[in-house]
Amino acid sequence: MTDSAEYRIEHDSMGEVRVPAHAKWRAQTQRAVENFPVSGQRLERAHIEALARIKAAAAVVNARLGVLDEERAEAIRAAAEEVARGDWDEHFPVDVFQTGSGTSSNMNMNEVVATLATERLGGARGASGEPVTVHPNDHVNASQSSNDVFPSSLHIAATAAVAADLVPALEHLAGSLETKASEFAEVVKSGRTHLMDATPVTLGQEFGGYAAQMRYGVERLRASLPRLAELPLGGTAVGTGINTPPGFAAAVIEEVARTTGLPLTEARDHFEAQGARDALVETSGQLRTVAVGLTKVSNDLRWMASGPRTGLAEIALPDLQPGSSIMPGKVNPVIPEAVLMVAAQVTGNDATVATAGAAGNFELNVMLPVMAKNLLESVRLLTNASRLLADRTVDGITANAERARTYAESSPSVVTPLNKYIGYENAAAVAKKALAEELTIREAVLRSGYVERGELTREQLDEALDVLRMTHP
Amino acid sequence: MTDSAEYRIEHDSMGEVRVPAHAKWRAQTQRAVENFPVSGQRLERAHIEALARIKAAAAVVNARLGVLDEERAEAIRAAAEEVARGDWDEHFPVDVFQTGSGTSSNMNMNEVVATLATERLGGARGASGEPVTVHPNDHVNASQSSNDVFPSSLHIAATAAVAADLVPALEHLAGSLETKASEFAEVVKSGRTHLMDATPVTLGQEFGGYAAQMRYGVERLRASLPRLAELPLGGTAVGTGINTPPGFAAAVIEEVARTTGLPLTEARDHFEAQGARDALVETSGQLRTVAVGLTKVSNDLRWMASGPRTGLAEIALPDLQPGSSIMPGKVNPVIPEAVLMVAAQVTGNDATVATAGAAGNFELNVMLPVMAKNLLESVRLLTNASRLLADRTVDGITANAERARTYAESSPSVVTPLNKYIGYENAAAVAKKALAEELTIREAVLRSGYVERGELTREQLDEALDVLRMTHP
Amino acid sequence: MTDSAEYRIEHDSMGEVRVPAHAKWRAQTQRAVENFPVSGQRLERAHIEALARIKAAAAVVNARLGVLDEERAEAIRAAAEEVARGDWDEHFPVDVFQTGSGTSSNMNMNEVVATLATERLGGARGASGEPVTVHPNDHVNASQSSNDVFPSSLHIAATAAVAADLVPALEHLAGSLETKASEFAEVVKSGRTHLMDATPVTLGQEFGGYAAQMRYGVERLRASLPRLAELPLGGTAVGTGINTPPGFAAAVIEEVARTTGLPLTEARDHFEAQGARDALVETSGQLRTVAVGLTKVSNDLRWMASGPRTGLAEIALPDLQPGSSIMPGKVNPVIPEAVLMVAAQVTGNDATVATAGAAGNFELNVMLPVMAKNLLESVRLLTNASRLLADRTVDGITANAERARTYAESSPSVVTPLNKYIGYENAAAVAKKALAEELTIREAVLRSGYVERGELTREQLDEALDVLRMTHP
Amino acid sequence: MTDSAEYRIEHDSMGEVRVPAHAKWRAQTQRAVENFPVSGQRLERAHIEALARIKAAAAVVNARLGVLDEERAEAIRAAAEEVARGDWDEHFPVDVFQTGSGTSSNMNMNEVVATLATERLGGARGASGEPVTVHPNDHVNASQSSNDVFPSSLHIAATAAVAADLVPALEHLAGSLETKASEFAEVVKSGRTHLMDATPVTLGQEFGGYAAQMRYGVERLRASLPRLAELPLGGTAVGTGINTPPGFAAAVIEEVARTTGLPLTEARDHFEAQGARDALVETSGQLRTVAVGLTKVSNDLRWMASGPRTGLAEIALPDLQPGSSIMPGKVNPVIPEAVLMVAAQVTGNDATVATAGAAGNFELNVMLPVMAKNLLESVRLLTNASRLLADRTVDGITANAERARTYAESSPSVVTPLNKYIGYENAAAVAKKALAEELTIREAVLRSGYVERGELTREQLDEALDVLRMTHP
Repeated sequence: MTDSAEYRIEHDSMGEVRVPAHAKWRAQTQRAVENFPVSGQRLERAHIEALARIKAAAAVVNARLGVLDEERAEAIRAAAEEVARGDWDEHFPVDVFQTGSGTSSNMNMNEVVATLATERLGGARGASGEPVTVHPNDHVNASQSSNDVFPSSLHIAATAAVAADLVPALEHLAGSLETKASEFAEVVKSGRTHLMDATPVTLGQEFGGYAAQMRYGVERLRASLPRLAELPLGGTAVGTGINTPPGFAAAVIEEVARTTGLPLTEARDHFEAQGARDALVETSGQLRTVAVGLTKVSNDLRWMASGPRTGLAEIALPDLQPGSSIMPGKVNPVIPEAVLMVAAQVTGNDATVATAGAAGNFELNVMLPVMAKNLLESVRLLTNASRLLADRTVDGITANAERARTYAESSPSVVTPLNKYIGYENAAAVAKKALAEELTIREAVLRSGYVERGELTREQLDEALDVLRMTHP
Repeated sequence: MTDSAEYRIEHDSMGEVRVPAHAKWRAQTQRAVENFPVSGQRLERAHIEALARIKAAAAVVNARLGVLDEERAEAIRAAAEEVARGDWDEHFPVDVFQTGSGTSSNMNMNEVVATLATERLGGARGASGEPVTVHPNDHVNASQSSNDVFPSSLHIAATAAVAADLVPALEHLAGSLETKASEFAEVVKSGRTHLMDATPVTLGQEFGGYAAQMRYGVERLRASLPRLAELPLGGTAVGTGINTPPGFAAAVIEEVARTTGLPLTEARDHFEAQGARDALVETSGQLRTVAVGLTKVSNDLRWMASGPRTGLAEIALPDLQPGSSIMPGKVNPVIPEAVLMVAAQVTGNDATVATAGAAGNFELNVMLPVMAKNLLESVRLLTNASRLLADRTVDGITANAERARTYAESSPSVVTPLNKYIGYENAAAVAKKALAEELTIREAVLRSGYVERGELTREQLDEALDVLRMTHP
Repeated sequence: MTDSAEYRIEHDSMGEVRVPAHAKWRAQTQRAVENFPVSGQRLERAHIEALARIKAAAAVVNARLGVLDEERAEAIRAAAEEVARGDWDEHFPVDVFQTGSGTSSNMNMNEVVATLATERLGGARGASGEPVTVHPNDHVNASQSSNDVFPSSLHIAATAAVAADLVPALEHLAGSLETKASEFAEVVKSGRTHLMDATPVTLGQEFGGYAAQMRYGVERLRASLPRLAELPLGGTAVGTGINTPPGFAAAVIEEVARTTGLPLTEARDHFEAQGARDALVETSGQLRTVAVGLTKVSNDLRWMASGPRTGLAEIALPDLQPGSSIMPGKVNPVIPEAVLMVAAQVTGNDATVATAGAAGNFELNVMLPVMAKNLLESVRLLTNASRLLADRTVDGITANAERARTYAESSPSVVTPLNKYIGYENAAAVAKKALAEELTIREAVLRSGYVERGELTREQLDEALDVLRMTHP
Repeated sequence: MTDSAEYRIEHDSMGEVRVPAHAKWRAQTQRAVENFPVSGQRLERAHIEALARIKAAAAVVNARLGVLDEERAEAIRAAAEEVARGDWDEHFPVDVFQTGSGTSSNMNMNEVVATLATERLGGARGASGEPVTVHPNDHVNASQSSNDVFPSSLHIAATAAVAADLVPALEHLAGSLETKASEFAEVVKSGRTHLMDATPVTLGQEFGGYAAQMRYGVERLRASLPRLAELPLGGTAVGTGINTPPGFAAAVIEEVARTTGLPLTEARDHFEAQGARDALVETSGQLRTVAVGLTKVSNDLRWMASGPRTGLAEIALPDLQPGSSIMPGKVNPVIPEAVLMVAAQVTGNDATVATAGAAGNFELNVMLPVMAKNLLESVRLLTNASRLLADRTVDGITANAERARTYAESSPSVVTPLNKYIGYENAAAVAKKALAEELTIREAVLRSGYVERGELTREQLDEALDVLRMTHP
């Protein structure tokens, strides 16, 4: 275990450290691995990718600006792109719960890219004859600071995840719901308010409302994107841009925007951009709102599918798996349940993001990795849950149209259109009579003599009590 | 408006200030009124009472310890007791959103009591012939600091509210639920898990479960009381007890404990007791747990009462008011809805308390008034909601026993007891057959030949399918 | 107390009820008063105003559409406008914690307006000779349902509060911060990251960052307004618009938009608009983000003003009131503390709104009043807190420029610009040497021989260590 | 990929399913793997262990009660113990976000144990000659339901994690803090309230307060354990205990309690125990309170260590790693930052648990797996963070006693003990004079003539201004 072949000695500004022989990382990463044995959780894949993309772009721009020689820059770029692709993920062992600036993860990236780039330059010799090497800080991190590059990588990863993953997933789900809204356009059922019988709606109207919730979700995510897509890059240590050449950030952001297709921009105020993380809190709030919307939809679906004998049983969800280890034949709404749990998780993640967002002081918020973990996880969970809900539940829903119509016709609230003929209070008396004597509303109206007394005609009564017509007055 | 008759001039260590002529408060209160036009909300009544009780007890003890003369002490005690009774509430105009230590409210109390006490001493003259007056800081606040006395008043108020208001209210609700549990002991109904038909339970068992939730709520509140009932009193400015005589805090606490009947104790560590407010966060968490319990109960009641035609309709709630301004005859579960809104409020209040509790630095948490407002409001809302739920809903619930039994017998899950005769997978097939062919489970078993083939006798079948028996296996 | 002169008898569809003789409200309000003795809190003023504005506009439109006669319509309009102005607030006694649809408050409005309108019509006689009266349901509530009108009133009130109150208040605060940013443009100080000494910034840059946070706050509120300003009006009971004439909602909304100047629109999907309250959850999330921003700013201000002897003491806040009841001469950052408590409250209110928003079922979310209370309170608190922070703290801040510069020059991080001359690791060694030997960085560089060895010139060293220059590299 | 050698066909009550050839799991697990591609996260190790322990104990008890034959029971017991030990963790592939009852994970366990047990019985033949096999439902799950066994496993895992991991970790941290409290008993420093200079305390008193927070944390966790340690086992499907023999649950719980050493008990009310999960919400609230406490402590430590030149610099934390990728020589409070991020995570996890806890309906809460993930993660994170804070930060803290004393003596609040000689208002004037004229308090008193005028003697002045004495008045 302590065999020297298994370890090598690296050093940094604090001294020596023993690193596993195979590791592409170096001293500072190793210190972080040892310092933070907290959760076992690492940066999200999307986050590693975004950080590597900045490193690749930075190398290109640093060369253009004369900060780096072409040879090293190209080696860094190529190495960083391998990392971006996911070829070296196992060389990012640092725990999420680390230094609050993400410096350990940025150094992890600098070290891995430096090692890979140095290996690429393997045979190369410099002017003075010694081998050309790539230094994590002086070369890979050139013109950058953890304080601007780490939050930038988080904003890029979140922008990508929202725009490229979640928005399409919500649109996919909206599409599924809209298809069902058309299919169920004529399935009339009882509305329910306060869980109590109300006037009729169609099942299609309900599904249309769910689809609208998802479309609004897309709208609100897009409304917040402009702020999420602003990057602190260029601020370096404290927002002033110390040690970065003019034009560096703009050029790097342009390069990353080009390669990713994302609408990234440079922060309008670099002090806000490093001192505060409000745009992440805002985005998290929007994700939470989407989760709230999914909660409503999932609950409605579960309740409509409840039964089959002792519940509402207006629709049937696809059978995906046996529902009970003890009650044979039971089939449960497992996907809506999973979605509800995702929504609860996103609600909690949002609380974490807001707590962390409020904890900044002066020139830096140092709760970045925990914001990253929670925000990116929320996007990922919502994306997967939305697609799952569409593909494994909504698409397979069938309506129990007969039962639904029976409900619609039995609801005492179908008395409502009679308000204009007999007034609210008389209508209320009719509804009560119907319930007490187990009559239909029609019967109760007739027995109460309203038609006889000419307050409305039999035709008006029929028209007024047409449940499908009530859904499109 | 600026008529000199309407105002008088007061002064404090920062200079002069104009105070309404009728006001019992003085300069510092007036500054606070002007500095904090934020919410319009004032301290809770229970909080004013608790703070006044400390002032009364402190005067008694200060006299005993020779810090105050008997004459002033008695005047302060009598004045503070008037305030405690609620006679002078309108003289506490300071906004909740004020200085985070509650100093403005403590000074408000000191000033009002000083004025009232001075008025009591009206004719009295001191040795040197000048009138005897009572000073807010030097006399009313003697041996105290806002930093120990204000949080102490909050802990006393919260302890009183939990022990004397909420615990009895929860026990009252538990009692109502238990009465119904007995009444409904034989009302068999279908269990529901995942909202789907499950094996039978009795309505009484469900109500017994709700009662148990309330009893556990009492248990968990009591489990946290020992820490809530610890008072920072005696720590004065920073926990060291500077400017307070030995024995002062213990004697005051004993006095307040005696007059209130509460199990108050002195903080075991005075630095924890002023630097942290963890006991409030803990208590708030327990209140939130009670709110979660009430949410479950209220939702179950709403769903069981849903209908009357298109819902579950297993029970009926008392009719309290017309339910709809447009749908005549509609009666809604308004009390459970109010309780659910209370629960949502308590959940949010809890988030405020936790956020505030985490915001302390060094020798003092300066988020005290907002913690007070939210914690005391939560206790008050839960108390009122629990009693309301008991008195206006639970007590009047009636069961629809016939419908409930029909549900129980129609649930495919009644096949469960057959597992031991025919195995889980065969039982599942029977359940499916019953559903598909609209048979009872009994019919499906018979048609599947299990009795014929002797896998179980007809008697065993009958016994196995007895739904009430299934609830007490 | 039970003197018949003090009460009158009213009736509704459920029977008789005794109402205080002076009350403008009637039976259903009275039932609600008795049913919901929960919190003592009533609807926010802004909410009553918005609801009354809808009633006034509805009367006008109902007359235009032939639903109401002109005489009654005009009486309703005039009465509703009095209510909107605030003349009858004490006649709205219903508790916030009531039926979840706000039906009780809508009926309270219908009843009060009906009474006032009937009084206006005092002498008038109808065709048949009997007095013309205005009915709460049949006239005031004509073409409406609580289910569309109550949430509409909430959206109007919230839109008004955000657009007309909070946005200007945040802009006001941003303006104050920007003025200070200019004033402090040359006040150089040490940056702080991780609370540790970092490279220099100017105090003006920091205040500019705070101003940017507020400007972004405005931007994000505006980004969400389009969804908040959509009104469910026209959906009536369940979203279908039963019992409302075509064009009613559009005309009412146009009328309210005209009289309020707000960008109100009709809901694009009426089933989403009543079944879900996602736009309120979204708005609450944005308010929470503003609160998070205010937390950062207030904390920074508190810390910069800490001391005067044992803290950072970079700035001084205005003295507003004596700070301690025991420590003479102490002046505390009371306004930032009040703002922090507001932020904590808004965070909790947001949790309540989200919890309530997720609790909807089918055609109606029945957690409306608690959402109203929390959302409108949050806007109000943030509005007042922002103005207070601007007027009583930011405007009066003075900088301790000398101390700030001393900090800037003593920070070991001023070594950073030397990275490009001597590399990161050598620079680290210089910083450590400076700290260990209590040298300035300049001295440590010289003693380490870098100038002597020609790695940089003395001029480059001077330029590199110019702290103000470091803030604008 | 579709090579038949890589897959085998399994079947369940819904039909056939293709399972990886090497997998110990079977059809239902495989369905769940395919149904829930959500998060990639699996059950916590501690949870798998607890569930396996129940299976082992159940087998023993089932044999004793005659439900299982000895041979199968022993095979199940042995197999389950292997699983409990962690030998088969990779055979538990089901996602956390699954069916809300955890049925998929329970079936995963039943299937894996059934396979392993069948393999153990390899050669055995039954009476009729065919090979003896173990069935997941009929044998491994005998006398159980997912609905009682899954939440029971969660309570066991949580009880174990709290009692065996977190409580000792908090005690360890408390011990470290107490050691420092003794070490720093005489290090006098300025107290700080509102972040402003206050009367002196010792650094030891502060650390004693932090230790007390941790000790209270232990107390509150223990206060909630009795409810957490109650198990729903024995309720089976809906709380009635259908299909379980009398005495089964009690015997299994006794067995698990014996093997784990945990104080486990059977639920007092089985309907509460399955319908509600309040005890988890309560425990989560206590964990959140511990997180709030750690937040306070970590923030104080960070601020005391701030600087070294522009902060408070009263203490130094151990240097663990280079602090900045751009500012050489910077050392940051990385462990306190990690702890603060853990606390933010626990706060969010708690919100998830509460949201999930409120979402139960009727006989089962179906948000179990997400509650499990968040609760167990919180315990794990707090455990690791507490030990880390103790071992890598607290133990290595050194005090800057000289600077601390200078602070204490320079604080204007040391005027406080003079209140009793010269009154609060005069003392305030002295404090202001000292600040304005940059005098010590002692100098300002003398120059104000109090000693000269005989209001106190020089000895009284010296004694009153002795800062260490002020910390133990």
